[in-house]
Amino acid sequence: MKKIEKIAHMDMHRLTAPMGQQGVGLVPTMGALHEGHLSLIQAAKQACQEVGVSIFVNPTQFSPGEDFERYPRPIEADLAKCEAEGVDWVFCPSVEEMYPTGCVTRVQVDRLGDVLCGQHRPGHFEGVATVVAKLFNIVQPAMAFFGQKDAQQVAIIRRMVRDLCSPVKIAVCPTIREADGLAMSSRNVYLSSSERAQATVLFESLSWAKSEIESGQKDVAGLTREMRNKVIAAGPCEIDYIEIVDADELTPKSNVEGRCLIALAVRIGKARLIDNLVVDAPRHGS
Amino acid sequence: MKKIEKIAHMDMHRLTAPMGQQGVGLVPTMGALHEGHLSLIQAAKQACQEVGVSIFVNPTQFSPGEDFERYPRPIEADLAKCEAEGVDWVFCPSVEEMYPTGCVTRVQVDRLGDVLCGQHRPGHFEGVATVVAKLFNIVQPAMAFFGQKDAQQVAIIRRMVRDLCSPVKIAVCPTIREADGLAMSSRNVYLSSSERAQATVLFESLSWAKSEIESGQKDVAGLTREMRNKVIAAGPCEIDYIEIVDADELTPKSNVEGRCLIALAVRIGKARLIDNLVVDAPRHGS
Repeated sequence: MKKIEKIAHMDMHRLTAPMGQQGVGLVPTMGALHEGHLSLIQAAKQACQEVGVSIFVNPTQFSPGEDFERYPRPIEADLAKCEAEGVDWVFCPSVEEMYPTGCVTRVQVDRLGDVLCGQHRPGHFEGVATVVAKLFNIVQPAMAFFGQKDAQQVAIIRRMVRDLCSPVKIAVCPTIREADGLAMSSRNVYLSSSERAQATVLFESLSWAKSEIESGQKDVAGLTREMRNKVIAAGPCEIDYIEIVDADELTPKSNVEGRCLIALAVRIGKARLIDNLVVDAPRHGS
Repeated sequence: MKKIEKIAHMDMHRLTAPMGQQGVGLVPTMGALHEGHLSLIQAAKQACQEVGVSIFVNPTQFSPGEDFERYPRPIEADLAKCEAEGVDWVFCPSVEEMYPTGCVTRVQVDRLGDVLCGQHRPGHFEGVATVVAKLFNIVQPAMAFFGQKDAQQVAIIRRMVRDLCSPVKIAVCPTIREADGLAMSSRNVYLSSSERAQATVLFESLSWAKSEIESGQKDVAGLTREMRNKVIAAGPCEIDYIEIVDADELTPKSNVEGRCLIALAVRIGKARLIDNLVVDAPRHGS
């Protein structure tokens, strides 16, 4: 009889048995696939022998009054894109299939889910963590692929996987942008053409702040104030937040130091847009 | 490319790949192993090719002021019992190993965790659900074995597994009792000899109610009042609850019907004791 005291040893034990889904990569999506999703699929194809995509517009991650009903669902186009990318299977369950009557279990990631978007979308990250936990159990992938554009989601899922010891490796892929810098998003279709032009200010203000930080600027309040001014100057909008936080813990910073996440969420017209950049503060700033 | 719409199909997909821990049975325990635990191990040995026992006194399922510190931890005796039963491995991690710094993820099973013991042990079932989810991810068993004595825990873990689509089959084994009917429990060691004699009233009152129900009695209030009288008459104690609820949903019943759980929690001396019986109400009562 073996006495095992460390999870690492248990992992070793597990690795001596054949793993069911070794080589399976999962790309969880809500559909309305764009170049960002396709880059996740391509990364999965590089890393895994079998690639599956889930398409599920998850109701529990929408707050009341949000765009659950009107969220785009071009399922045939999505399937064609997956086919073209060489995806092995697409899992597109119904809401009833994923949440049968009497479904009462929730996965909560404290603290990380309460800041940034969590303050403006109550229950959102609980919905995300729960559905991702379910998808991981259903598919049992060896790896799952997420985009850096959803930086807070990435931080939360990484933490959930670590905390619950899920046997899934989380891969994070760079944000894919339009030629003018706007982060690709299924919600960009909500923008009118003038709003679409205005929306480039988000990446511009993030890039400005990143460049300032790389030049040694440490004053978080000054940086976010100036970003706010830039965003407001570009046209009518509602700023949910513009923040500079610790990239892993998502805790606020008063001075720029270490690995920082510059993140924002801004409502332009009918679209709520998010974007972010990660920046390593220089050790010896000006 | 396959389009998959049902979890059942996804299960089929999964079953076409070799399962890592097929044939592995897990018996999750807090140690201080008694005949009840050994019966779980024996059931696991019958059903599984490989049997592991986890021994972990999980701090997050103890409320402040409960017996976390003094909970018995006879680890050497436990290991010897596991060895004698032919257990393949025992996983006995430290608290730091299971809850490293920054661990903030919680699994909650709403409603089922709020009644019965949940009313008297705030956070208890959240602690249970979270640690069991972790253990399932670490070990990845095909089956896990629990005792009917912890009826509410069983209902919650079954629901969690269903809701989160965990690929683990939950096996529930009968409560093992002393010769005089007292349910085996690691907490029975807290009883003085007179308290030990008094404690037999718990199973007596449960058996009385079960027999009354089988004879056609439908009056929940009358049954629980009489059980309460019996328990109080046996000696000094504090009754947390004596209830008759739906066996799966744990919802209160005003009339006995269907599959019922008669459950109680009573504090005698330093021990908080729980016990229960399941009874199918006869279709045509008196």
